[in-house]
Amino acid sequence: MEFACKQIDLDEVVKCSLGLTRAEYRVFKKYMALKNQVTLADLSKKTGLDRTTVQKASLKLVERGLLSRFQHNRARGGYEFFYSIADRKEIRSKVRTIVRSWWETVDDNLQYW
Amino acid sequence: MEFACKQIDLDEVVKCSLGLTRAEYRVFKKYMALKNQVTLADLSKKTGLDRTTVQKASLKLVERGLLSRFQHNRARGGYEFFYSIADRKEIRSKVRTIVRSWWETVDDNLQYW
Repeated sequence: MEFACKQIDLDEVVKCSLGLTRAEYRVFKKYMALKNQVTLADLSKKTGLDRTTVQKASLKLVERGLLSRFQHNRARGGYEFFYSIADRKEIRSKVRTIVRSWWETVDDNLQYW
Repeated sequence: MEFACKQIDLDEVVKCSLGLTRAEYRVFKKYMALKNQVTLADLSKKTGLDRTTVQKASLKLVERGLLSRFQHNRARGGYEFFYSIADRKEIRSKVRTIVRSWWETVDDNLQYW
């Protein structure tokens, strides 16, 4: 894809619109690809990213409303957290709204050019 | 202005949307800034670009419908050509339509992302 003769790829568009770093986006994409809830340890294994990175990224994704966190009680007491991507439709809609606003800024400027 | 975290400027957007080279865009901008019809020699002086560049660029601008050419008869016989920018409103509208189509391509891709 191109915009103003600059090559842009979809990952770049989504990452930028959601304000994520490269590592956060990598974690985000992995969650997107998974159907089931996973623990941070699971995701660390699946992405090959260290636990701290996965934890930090997941926290930010939760804050941004991109990731849901669930508390599961263990049979023997205590609990652990599971994570899964938030509503995919809503995320897509959010990204599209932001990208639309970028275009609108360009278009506004063109009106007075 | 930004699009997908890439800095873009308005000149770049317009130049790219109209498919012009740097020199062609420079000539185009000069015509845009002028109210009166000018000869190629006038424009060459005003832009500091050599006559051949101005001539080539102007020809392309005429072909693209961005520039109008007028034939003026000389009092002593013969004629010369004068040039002025085509309908500014139409040009702006053309650019906006093209930029909109770039955004639509990105948006289409996001729908299936």
